[in-house]
Amino acid sequence: MTHAREMFDTHPGTTAMDADALIECVEACFDCSQSCSACADACLGEEMVGHLKRCITMCLNCSDMCATTGRIVSRQTEFEPAMARATLQACAEACSLCAEECERHATEMNMEHCRVCAEACRRCERACNEALSAVGA
Amino acid sequence: MTHAREMFDTHPGTTAMDADALIECVEACFDCSQSCSACADACLGEEMVGHLKRCITMCLNCSDMCATTGRIVSRQTEFEPAMARATLQACAEACSLCAEECERHATEMNMEHCRVCAEACRRCERACNEALSAVGA
Amino acid sequence: MTHAREMFDTHPGTTAMDADALIECVEACFDCSQSCSACADACLGEEMVGHLKRCITMCLNCSDMCATTGRIVSRQTEFEPAMARATLQACAEACSLCAEECERHATEMNMEHCRVCAEACRRCERACNEALSAVGA
Amino acid sequence: MTHAREMFDTHPGTTAMDADALIECVEACFDCSQSCSACADACLGEEMVGHLKRCITMCLNCSDMCATTGRIVSRQTEFEPAMARATLQACAEACSLCAEECERHATEMNMEHCRVCAEACRRCERACNEALSAVGA
Repeated sequence: MTHAREMFDTHPGTTAMDADALIECVEACFDCSQSCSACADACLGEEMVGHLKRCITMCLNCSDMCATTGRIVSRQTEFEPAMARATLQACAEACSLCAEECERHATEMNMEHCRVCAEACRRCERACNEALSAVGA
Repeated sequence: MTHAREMFDTHPGTTAMDADALIECVEACFDCSQSCSACADACLGEEMVGHLKRCITMCLNCSDMCATTGRIVSRQTEFEPAMARATLQACAEACSLCAEECERHATEMNMEHCRVCAEACRRCERACNEALSAVGA
Repeated sequence: MTHAREMFDTHPGTTAMDADALIECVEACFDCSQSCSACADACLGEEMVGHLKRCITMCLNCSDMCATTGRIVSRQTEFEPAMARATLQACAEACSLCAEECERHATEMNMEHCRVCAEACRRCERACNEALSAVGA
Repeated sequence: MTHAREMFDTHPGTTAMDADALIECVEACFDCSQSCSACADACLGEEMVGHLKRCITMCLNCSDMCATTGRIVSRQTEFEPAMARATLQACAEACSLCAEECERHATEMNMEHCRVCAEACRRCERACNEALSAVGA
């Protein structure tokens, strides 16, 4: 359960873009930021942590970028399309790189936390790309 | 929908505390971080923004503290009770201060975004306090 | 005084790009993140806060993006050029938008905190662009 | 070089506490946040990363808490002593835990990045404690 939709519905202004695309993007960003922090930690708990350095790094990067994007897109009062585009593009890239790495470990090493994290990343990548279309590239 | 529970269920280690308290705390922290960022922005969109300076500040502080606490509590591999306690106490304080301020504007000025944000803050305050009990004060 | 240079000098690996461009970028990002948080707060303290909504928003966005970029660029062990490029581009955009807004208030309204903040933003924009050249666009 | 002092000097209000303690605290928080992100990454680059799991975790926690504290203390317009105390206490704890861990690796394993990071943590711990005195405990 999140309050994202209610927060948008009670905003005094009008949202700058399609509300559904916006809310899904914000929820996906915060969810992915959590999953990536948790996956970096889960990788650290694996015996073969030495083989997971890239995965940990992609997760830390993606967690930070999703947190920032979720906040920037949440700011609707003085929404600036150029800023939204820049952060959404960077976030889609972070999610794609992290998902690719996690999917490899999910398939090759049967790492379940990587499978879940990749799912969160792909959802967020998709949501960022849909928000990009809504903003107008 | 969030992936927090699945991330904990697939963690290679054992969680350091009651899993339900942990998951609710993490979800509440990320949700509250978003609500507070959105409420600061909604306050900025109000005509009477000059009367909402304290509300905006409490929201920004609470959003930052919730994001940090949600991440720290998500890290279970080398969970450190002293660190968890410190961040959970600070987060409960941030949520309490923000909720109090938002509730005042919800009641006196009928601000709906403050009512929703206060709800997210009170949920997070409660979740932090329950996580504190689970960690052992 | 910061420890950024010493941290890079003692890293066990080799840095993925020109060290001076890297260190200046990291230091500028963290500095700009602080300046923008402080400028948003200073704007909130102005009587004419109603005219500073865009400035506050650009500052909050820029502060978040600089914090994220400063961290991503700090991660050298598994440096990923595609990720670096995406975050550096988004950060240069955030800094440019924020600097432009702050410069207007510095000139038209003689706001000294906006003048200082614009300086930090322009330094960071430049540092991101130089880091982009170092990474290879 | 940072702009923290200039940002405080140009703030439209009066700072809520001793300006020198405040500025040192803010600068130390942002510096420590960077050092801890960089030290987590440097640990990840060590061959013996399997022995550095606790160090990486303390660094990630400390980096997040310092970033949040540096921002909260930077907000002077509606400074709330109860919030400042809570975050400064949590930050001093994070710095102390991280410094202790890093110092052990600096001494026992001659890890230079841990020595530098411990220095940044001890400086920040001290600055938080002095800011706590200035706020009034």
